[in-house]
Amino acid sequence: MAVTNTRTRPGLEQMAELGQQLRVDAVRCSAAAGSGHPTSSMSAADLMSVLLTRYLRYDVGDPDDPHNDHLVFSKGHASPLLYAMLRAAGAISADELMTYRRLGSRLEGHPTPRLPWVDVATGSLGQGLPVGVGMALTGARLDRLPYRTWVLCGDSELAEGSMWEAFEHAGHAGLDHLTAIVDVNRLGQRGPTRHQWDLDAYARRMSAFGWRVIEVDGHDIAAVDRAFAQAVSTEGKPSVILARTRKGRGVASVEDREGKHGKPVPDPDEAVRELGGVRDLTVRVREPDRTGTPHRFPDGPLSLPAYEVGAKEATRTAFGRALAALGGARGDVVVLDGEVADSTRTEFFADAHPERFFECYIAEQQMLAAAVGMQALRRVPFAATFAAFWSRAFDFVRMAAVSRADLRLCGSHAGVSIGQDGPSQMGLEDLALFRTVHGSTVLYPCDANQTADLVVAMADRAGISYLRTNRGDTPVIYPAGERFPIGGSRTLRRSPVDELTIFAAGVTVHQAVEAANRLASEGVPARVVDAYSVKPIDAETVRAAAHETGHLLTVEDHWPEGGLGDAVLEVFATGAEPVPRVRKLAVRDMPASATPDEQLRAAGIDARGIAEAARALLDGSPD
Amino acid sequence: MAVTNTRTRPGLEQMAELGQQLRVDAVRCSAAAGSGHPTSSMSAADLMSVLLTRYLRYDVGDPDDPHNDHLVFSKGHASPLLYAMLRAAGAISADELMTYRRLGSRLEGHPTPRLPWVDVATGSLGQGLPVGVGMALTGARLDRLPYRTWVLCGDSELAEGSMWEAFEHAGHAGLDHLTAIVDVNRLGQRGPTRHQWDLDAYARRMSAFGWRVIEVDGHDIAAVDRAFAQAVSTEGKPSVILARTRKGRGVASVEDREGKHGKPVPDPDEAVRELGGVRDLTVRVREPDRTGTPHRFPDGPLSLPAYEVGAKEATRTAFGRALAALGGARGDVVVLDGEVADSTRTEFFADAHPERFFECYIAEQQMLAAAVGMQALRRVPFAATFAAFWSRAFDFVRMAAVSRADLRLCGSHAGVSIGQDGPSQMGLEDLALFRTVHGSTVLYPCDANQTADLVVAMADRAGISYLRTNRGDTPVIYPAGERFPIGGSRTLRRSPVDELTIFAAGVTVHQAVEAANRLASEGVPARVVDAYSVKPIDAETVRAAAHETGHLLTVEDHWPEGGLGDAVLEVFATGAEPVPRVRKLAVRDMPASATPDEQLRAAGIDARGIAEAARALLDGSPD
Repeated sequence: MAVTNTRTRPGLEQMAELGQQLRVDAVRCSAAAGSGHPTSSMSAADLMSVLLTRYLRYDVGDPDDPHNDHLVFSKGHASPLLYAMLRAAGAISADELMTYRRLGSRLEGHPTPRLPWVDVATGSLGQGLPVGVGMALTGARLDRLPYRTWVLCGDSELAEGSMWEAFEHAGHAGLDHLTAIVDVNRLGQRGPTRHQWDLDAYARRMSAFGWRVIEVDGHDIAAVDRAFAQAVSTEGKPSVILARTRKGRGVASVEDREGKHGKPVPDPDEAVRELGGVRDLTVRVREPDRTGTPHRFPDGPLSLPAYEVGAKEATRTAFGRALAALGGARGDVVVLDGEVADSTRTEFFADAHPERFFECYIAEQQMLAAAVGMQALRRVPFAATFAAFWSRAFDFVRMAAVSRADLRLCGSHAGVSIGQDGPSQMGLEDLALFRTVHGSTVLYPCDANQTADLVVAMADRAGISYLRTNRGDTPVIYPAGERFPIGGSRTLRRSPVDELTIFAAGVTVHQAVEAANRLASEGVPARVVDAYSVKPIDAETVRAAAHETGHLLTVEDHWPEGGLGDAVLEVFATGAEPVPRVRKLAVRDMPASATPDEQLRAAGIDARGIAEAARALLDGSPD
Repeated sequence: MAVTNTRTRPGLEQMAELGQQLRVDAVRCSAAAGSGHPTSSMSAADLMSVLLTRYLRYDVGDPDDPHNDHLVFSKGHASPLLYAMLRAAGAISADELMTYRRLGSRLEGHPTPRLPWVDVATGSLGQGLPVGVGMALTGARLDRLPYRTWVLCGDSELAEGSMWEAFEHAGHAGLDHLTAIVDVNRLGQRGPTRHQWDLDAYARRMSAFGWRVIEVDGHDIAAVDRAFAQAVSTEGKPSVILARTRKGRGVASVEDREGKHGKPVPDPDEAVRELGGVRDLTVRVREPDRTGTPHRFPDGPLSLPAYEVGAKEATRTAFGRALAALGGARGDVVVLDGEVADSTRTEFFADAHPERFFECYIAEQQMLAAAVGMQALRRVPFAATFAAFWSRAFDFVRMAAVSRADLRLCGSHAGVSIGQDGPSQMGLEDLALFRTVHGSTVLYPCDANQTADLVVAMADRAGISYLRTNRGDTPVIYPAGERFPIGGSRTLRRSPVDELTIFAAGVTVHQAVEAANRLASEGVPARVVDAYSVKPIDAETVRAAAHETGHLLTVEDHWPEGGLGDAVLEVFATGAEPVPRVRKLAVRDMPASATPDEQLRAAGIDARGIAEAARALLDGSPD
């Protein structure tokens, strides 16, 4: 039997039947896996049956069709339901469905883009809706196409603040092609949710945030159908279908019972019988609305700002100006900022390309998530805030790596060198955080021309790239137009008789050069390397320095853990060679307020501190 | 002239005068500093004048009085206003006020507990209200005293999802001794906020979250006074005073103007004249309400669970059981969980000590913030969620270190060894994140008895301690009652002729022992160290191993960056000695779903992978 919605509208009974099939398949595949979340799938099965049958517009044969709707499972643990839908839509086979959670299978415990019909990874709750907001923004403001974004949410995840960042952003932006479907099954992982089946409690909150709220019995197929119809007819605001459902619906031994989260049903064969047996319905999903073509902003020649050697400029300013120039060259570049564009200097881009600038206000999680949604839809997003405040969105960065997302992030106001504002505003762990991200790139330029070149390189870099910028002015030391390949470094001082090598990046490069000058005047030749590419580090240069100078001194405006010093040490952690004597200079005491120079002095990472450490390292009497 | 509220209620005019004094002092101290946020202080000056004069109940001479109210500046950048209040209250001198933002001053750019009247550091927006919720919970459920918690919030920070986690938690808990005062001055850092002066937009949201909302003109002293009176008379729900204000109020050159954020006013002398000149009012703050004594839960003997060597138990279970036992011994221990108590096993504590257990639902930021608030009020909080999801609250952890907070955090479900759930649920960066925290302790036990001992040690540990636990069962290898000092390690295999040392922790300890057995059978003696204390690492044992065996192999269920391997390398980063040959084994590819054993195998951190790596390290042919 084929359910099809292309000509005749499938009836309510057919949709009810499909709902049962989705349940049966969720039960079967999780039973075969010995783990998984069938009960969380069963509560939402009727909702997804109606969506798949009558409302979703999607070319299953061409997941990259720019006219496709997008469906995000914010409650990623309901992956059995998603995979059952894909089977019903003919995207995957019945056999593949049964590989759920096995080694090598694309059907992971939580959805990832290893499946071509999945845009982004989910599984950390509270992320799918914010990402969906990014997709809806792309549809409304960038592509300017009528496709819709559908997000299946759980009720437990409504406790996450990031969901309310999403409700706020979408409500204010009036994203009427975005619909959240909330599966209010009353039960979280360990018991009842805060509001259980008090749908009105949720409705009050969502209405207050500017959404159209449609309450429905999530197992009344006709009512669900009407709810979707209301959602698609809503204009000027996003819509949410608040569906009262029962977890484990359809199988008495688990339905609406505590202690049944995240495990196969106890007797799968009996459950399948109770659900009416295995079915083999297929759905021909509606064709996308192919009205219009995706809007494209024009490309143009790249005209990067150039800085005179010897001038002074902050790397954050160079970042902003380069970004504006890049935006003129590439129509696919978009920029997001967390209400600090005057500090990060993305204001230059905002002024030049207002249609491609997204003010996210002080909501770093929503900002990062929107960027993830935009890159999934073929954009090249850059997002910026203070380096310290990326720690606010780090779970989203972590999940973006699971999403195989290509993102370019900038953190300004790095380190103690910001000065008087004190430790709450100082990014002192950002290098460590971004170095842990799988497949990441971590860059830390020391002058304006270097910054500009790296910004351009980031646009074509796969994975998550992070650029660290400084607040204060630094001297321009490289001529405009020089290239700074990712994975490279620049040796600023060297001689055949160097007794040690100082590795620095960003603000400490200039201190290191000054320290080398002092040491030279004392007859101690020191090599200085500008390690602007912290990850990947220039291993060849590190090894050569170790071989030739025997002593390595690393200097960073960062906590001792996980930054430049560890990146240098990492080169020797393959066991292939003994490591030379290495000393790490970093920020070791909690800073307070002081001028930038006083801060560098107090942390011992100014020229004087570096020179002292170098002498001690050579004397064999450090610390 | 002295403004006093102990007998006669100070009049409106006096409060208006004090408001002007607070503005003048904010202007003066930021002008002297050459930086700071006078305009953000001036908008809230009338609000704080009324609070300080008539409503705050606080013994300035004894900031540790348990009956004191608490005042948190969630908009920490308005520190000049706070310091001006402290001067007016006689806590600091006029001279000290003028040290604002100078090297060595307690008056930092953003408030920190270096000032005894400041409970917690603020400055990363969106954190003060969630921390205030923790204080109000302490008052209502632990201390059971009538003190109040007041939180001054900015309007910009209402974009942070964490604020809505706080509104949700406090509203649902009915914390009627909590009052938020929102300074709606319409202007954020870089321009207008999303809702500007649309107080109704905020009011709808906060009402929907169960708060009593009081809208007011924040410069109408009489109206502000009535608003506070309404707030303190509110029962059964928290209250919020939504105050329409003007940024830079009182100085025409900056009042309600863009581009005047975060900098001294242009002409301070003229501004002070415009504000009516320097004043020298003092306020005698109302005495605390000394009704009652703080409730204390009883202490008792400590009776830790004991596990038989050779039995199998998950360290997460041992954590939960030890925590329950600790709760019986210490009445000051409280526990918070993010709706995963059945996974983290804090459910044992919840069952044994329900009055001291706080269900925070899936809101990790609010959970961490509540713990920060509770430790500021003399409690010993433990908080737990999946290791991966601590990344959600990391900005709060970062700020907790600035707060000099003593916190005990547990992350369960660490590493690829969780198995089928896949990468979204795997904590693979948690060791790196927590190692970057200033003054932190990072522990990773491998068996149940070791876990229990470390849980007890954490209770007395200053700073932020983190315990990593595993999902699956591991064999018990240590007898009950053995001690595992923080900073120590256990050498599990050793001989005088060891050719290398394997450093492992948690799940990899058991794999390392098995690898050593395999190597021994091939005639390769290998030392095995259980490095359960990742930070501080047992440097002496690391050095001895390097000296005696020459080759070090580290093995961790974690990304390569920032974890155990880097902790071992860190020992050699003082430059005092050359580094031996070191190889780090870690998780290098993005995992997917598979069984725990398959995961360890795929990552090359099982016994076979360790033995292979050991042979290659000794052969000098790694990788």
